[in-house]
Order: sequence, then C-alpha cells, then structure tokens
Amino acid sequence: MLATRDLLQMGKGFERSNIASMAGYVPGEQLAGTGIIKLNTNESPYPPSPKVQAALAQITAKELRRYPQPTADDFRAAAASVHGVKSDQIIATRGGDELLRLLLTTFVEPGQRVGMTDPTYSLYPVLTAIQDASSVSIPLEDDWSLPADFAQRINAEGCVLTFIVNPHAPTGALLSQDTLEQIAKSLNGMLVVDEAYVDFVDNSEHDLTEWAVNTENVVLLRTLSKGYGLAGLRFGYGIGPADLISPMLYKTRDSYNLDMISQALAEAAIADQAYAKYTWQKVIKQRARLSLALNALGLATPHSEANFLLVTLPQQSKITAESLYLALKQEGILVRYFDHERMHDKLRITVGTDAENTVLLEHLTKLLA
Amino acid sequence: MLATRDLLQMGKGFERSNIASMAGYVPGEQLAGTGIIKLNTNESPYPPSPKVQAALAQITAKELRRYPQPTADDFRAAAASVHGVKSDQIIATRGGDELLRLLLTTFVEPGQRVGMTDPTYSLYPVLTAIQDASSVSIPLEDDWSLPADFAQRINAEGCVLTFIVNPHAPTGALLSQDTLEQIAKSLNGMLVVDEAYVDFVDNSEHDLTEWAVNTENVVLLRTLSKGYGLAGLRFGYGIGPADLISPMLYKTRDSYNLDMISQALAEAAIADQAYAKYTWQKVIKQRARLSLALNALGLATPHSEANFLLVTLPQQSKITAESLYLALKQEGILVRYFDHERMHDKLRITVGTDAENTVLLEHLTKLLA
Repeated sequence: MLATRDLLQMGKGFERSNIASMAGYVPGEQLAGTGIIKLNTNESPYPPSPKVQAALAQITAKELRRYPQPTADDFRAAAASVHGVKSDQIIATRGGDELLRLLLTTFVEPGQRVGMTDPTYSLYPVLTAIQDASSVSIPLEDDWSLPADFAQRINAEGCVLTFIVNPHAPTGALLSQDTLEQIAKSLNGMLVVDEAYVDFVDNSEHDLTEWAVNTENVVLLRTLSKGYGLAGLRFGYGIGPADLISPMLYKTRDSYNLDMISQALAEAAIADQAYAKYTWQKVIKQRARLSLALNALGLATPHSEANFLLVTLPQQSKITAESLYLALKQEGILVRYFDHERMHDKLRITVGTDAENTVLLEHLTKLLA
Repeated sequence: MLATRDLLQMGKGFERSNIASMAGYVPGEQLAGTGIIKLNTNESPYPPSPKVQAALAQITAKELRRYPQPTADDFRAAAASVHGVKSDQIIATRGGDELLRLLLTTFVEPGQRVGMTDPTYSLYPVLTAIQDASSVSIPLEDDWSLPADFAQRINAEGCVLTFIVNPHAPTGALLSQDTLEQIAKSLNGMLVVDEAYVDFVDNSEHDLTEWAVNTENVVLLRTLSKGYGLAGLRFGYGIGPADLISPMLYKTRDSYNLDMISQALAEAAIADQAYAKYTWQKVIKQRARLSLALNALGLATPHSEANFLLVTLPQQSKITAESLYLALKQEGILVRYFDHERMHDKLRITVGTDAENTVLLEHLTKLLA
C-alpha cells in the first residue's frame, strides 16, 4: 500500500494508478438536428409502446418528492412474469451497463482475470480496467465463430468471469443454447451472456432464461435500450440464480439506483410484450431486406441475428469504408465506422425503418456506382 | 490471487470475500398509504418547482428512443451557472450516492483507508466495504463537535480520502468554511464535503463552492433529493477542481449514467433558484418553530442547520424513544428511531410542513403528558 504522499509524488495526483493509466469509454456519435438518419448506435427505429406514453402522462412531478422503490419491485415482478422466473432471480439496473459493472464489483477481485472474445462490446475491457482486473481476449476465428476450445483457453488463463455477447456485437452471430451450456459447464468461473440484442433473433423460441436461473454460474443481461425503444430511459436487468442476483441486489447496487419515473415506464414497456414483438418482427424483416440489398451492391454482410449488419466492402472497391462513412454522414446518414485490429475498414449499420433503409440504399447505390 | 476453484471450495460461491462478509445498506422505511405523515427520511415537505412539472409535460415517450447526453452537459451548464463555476468542475450523478461510489472507485485502492466521523451517514462504511477499503471512524465529542485534532488523527491512520457530512447527519451541526479549510489543508488525502443538507443552513451566505474548485483535494457533494423536492428523481452532483472531476466524468462513471427525463427535470429544478430558496426559507422557519416546541415538551434538540432535528428524551422520561417512535407510527406518523452506539435511544425527525408539524406536536404533547 502506497502512502498518499507517495502517490502524489508520483505525479498522478489523487487518482488510482489503474484509473490514471486507462482510457475512458467513448460513446457513439450523437448528431443533433432533424432529418438525420441515425444508424450508428443500434437504437430501435420504432418508438416505445403507447403504454409507455400513457404511463408517462400519469406521472406528476409532486410524486418525485419521495424516494423510489429501492429494488424496483414492481418492475421485477413484471419482468419475472414475462420470463416465467421468480422476482429474486431478477435485478433491475440503470441500463445493461450498470449490471456489467455490478458483476465485476461483486464477483471479480482486483488483479483477477476476465474473459471475453475479440472483437466484442468495447465497454467490457474498460469496466474491467476500472475494477483493476485484467482482460483476457480470445480471438474469434476468421469467420467470426467462437474457437472450439474457448472455455479451455479461458480456464487456462484463470478467468473468474467471462462476458459473451449473444447475438454477437459487432457481427450479429448467434451462439445456440447447446453451445453456451457446454461453455458454462466447462468454465471454472462465471459466464455472463449479454443478450442486449436477443430480441431480434430469428427463432422466437430461442430463450435461455429457464436454463440461466437453474445454472449456478450464469447470468443473462437484458436491456430496454434496443428491443423496447428506450435507450434514453437507461433501464436493463439481469436474470440468473438468486445466489448470484442477491449480492448485487442487496449489497453492491447503489441503494436507490433507479428513479421513480423510469421504474414506472419500464414496467409499462415490458408488460406490453405484444407491441414489443411486433416491432422486433418489423426489424427482422427489414434486416433481411437490407442484407439482400447490400449484398446486391457487392457489400458482404455475415448472417446477423441482431438489429445491425457488419458490412465489408469488396477487396477491389474504389472507395474505402471510411470514405463511405464520411460520404453518408455528409448526406445526414450516420453509420458506425470501424478501423482497428480484427475490424479493419468495416461499417456497422443499424437496421432502420423501411423509409430510412430506402434512403440509405439509394445513397449507397449512388456512392458505389 | 486465489483460483476460482479455491474460492468455490471456501464455500462462498462466486462472491468476493469482502462482499460475502459485508452487510448491505438498509434504506429508510417507506410506508404506503395516504394520510401518512412521513418525517423519517429527510425528504422535502414541499413539491418540486412548477417548472419541473412544466418540463415533465413537455416530454414525449418517443424521445426516449435515443441515448441521452452521456455527460449531462445541459444540466452541468445550468449548475455551473448557478454556482459561478465552470462546467468541467461539475459532475452530474444518479443521486449523491453515485458520486460517493465514484469517489471511492476513482481515488481509493482496495486495502486503503477512508476517514469519517462517528456518527455519520451510514452509507459511507457500506460503500467503503464494497471497495474493499477500511473505514476509520473518529468519534465526535460528547457535544457532537469535531475533535480539534481530527485531521491529525486521520493522517496518522493513513486515510487517503475522508467524508465529512456538513451540515452533519444526524445532528444537523454545521462546520464553518474556516474549519473545513484548516482540515483540508492539514489532510494528506482528499476531503469530500457531503453537502446533502446545505440548502437549509441559516446563513444564506455560507457557500464553499469557490473555495472547493480552487482547492486541489476537495470535492463537494450536492443533491436534488432534499432541497429540491426530488428524492424520486435520483439526481445529485459533485463540485470540485477539474483534475478531480475529470477522471470520474470521463473514466469511472457508467457511460450513460443519467436518463433523458431526469436530466431535463433536474435542469428545470436547478434553474429555478427562486422557488428553491422560497422552500428552504419555509423549512428553516418550521425548523425553528419545531425545535422550540419540542424543547418546551422537554425534548432536547442540538442546534440543527439541516431539515431534521435529533431528539433526545429527558433522562427521567417515563417513555423510551423506541416506544415514542412506535406510538407515533401507530398514529400514521413516521420518524426515524436510532439505537446504536453513540446514538442511544434517540429520534431523528424530519421538518415537515406547518400542518404536519402541528399534528406531530399534538400527538407528542399527548404521548408525553
């Protein structure tokens, strides 16, 4: 343990050394202005359920005088009912991000190792660094599939917790329940399956919840940011066995992590499964259309079960992904441009509405001509 | 570093040992039902500014589809303007509690020591335990004043960060700026002045903000939960030099910690200083009235500059604080009962509205007769 004065003399001020040496997470670009077609941060192209607006209209500011439910019991009961699990197998969090942090705070000691794939959601290594733990990244195969010996390699590295985003970001590939069951069984540590995009899976029977609550080392992450059109509300939840949920719910969670309004609106949103499923089906249909049209323009897209497509330009393309990204931006269409290891010269395009996708394709047709 | 299997064999499941061995924070009692007079958790007795209701009425659910401002720039600009500081000297957080956690995450290594007084806000040792750091509690004097050698004792214990709640909870005592300046100057580590109750200070000239932003080791905590009638909104902020604010704002804060609605409502609330000050003056006036009336009933109350009074029964009282608490609860009046070390057989009563205080005093008069 260093004395305060030593730390100050190291010229790092008061920050912990792991914080001083890390870089923060960079959130996706948000352009202001009307008429922008925003296909860069995987938000839903559809507004939330009309029942969310109805719940919002019911709320008066004077109710905000009182503290909210500390553990979001009404939302948790609604979510438990939707998933056929018990309330004590659910924790409600401020976006999925808070759950990721709570998992690290609760289950990972500083100095321990956290497993993930490369590429993956870029927040995992940032949160791992904040916990002063080490990220172990196992590269995906060239076709973006998970290496067959993934769990063995994670165990060999001594990881105590592993993040798998499924469907995968940024490729959209889906691992089956069988594959995940094998991995969870093989792992010495915990497995977190980040299901931020699970609402958009082709097969509507795909459902890991019953397995998760009955498996001692598995937690699922869900969010209302994508499938419920509520990115601005910051609401997510975790599903898992009560033994794993309980210490996060009653010990490490900030004591009032969710405000009264977002609890009420999230409850209205998750209770309206019919509307949510209607929007998921529309996204799935638009994804198929967009994918076919992009392929027809010579752009490769691996099969995606999420609400985005990873786009690779043909090798002989006269235009780079970066110039395509910039040209689209000039036309008021925002997509995500990647240029780092394993993600060289690629775009990630969120599936928009019918009209948005039409405008996008018109511009791409011109730009690639 | 323990291997996962070792941890499991220790019978603690997947939890870190510091989490497994700690107790969670217990939030204040919240009774449902109308007609309850709730004087136990220091909420404002007055609703938020009418401008908060106006801002709420402007919001439509469809706007929630997009991610909110990651760093709450509009709120920070409004708060900076109110306090005459710069935006980069402000961080907006989900209640003051999130700021407390971020301070520990950013500036305190596991194993290091965190200073505080005894008694103090009971969340400090809980958050310190989550960070796997140690709490060092310096007892207040018998008259609840801070020992003259407080900073020296904190330094001798090697604390890297110290929490002082000012006005103090649960006594309401105020330390002057001079005293805090002396302490900050003497401390080897950081000083966090938790100003959750500062809006209710008698002297409206009391203002530490200019000092804080110009002092390398000081951060102030503010909240909208008490002085702005918005406990249900979960909104607070920190004020300090940019060197201390910046790593929390750009590195350790959850990437979208504040939803769109609460940012808009908080901005409306803080911009309406005239309304806020009007409610603070009413609380200050009611506090003086309540304190005098309690004293007349033989109940001792140390001078409070917060929105609550710490109440001690006379030594020869026939009734205990606990039975008084229970008797009031039966009448639908909720106050806070303390019975632990340094807080033996005491009540903490939040200052209510004129009407609430009248009902409380009527019942106390009967019960103590």
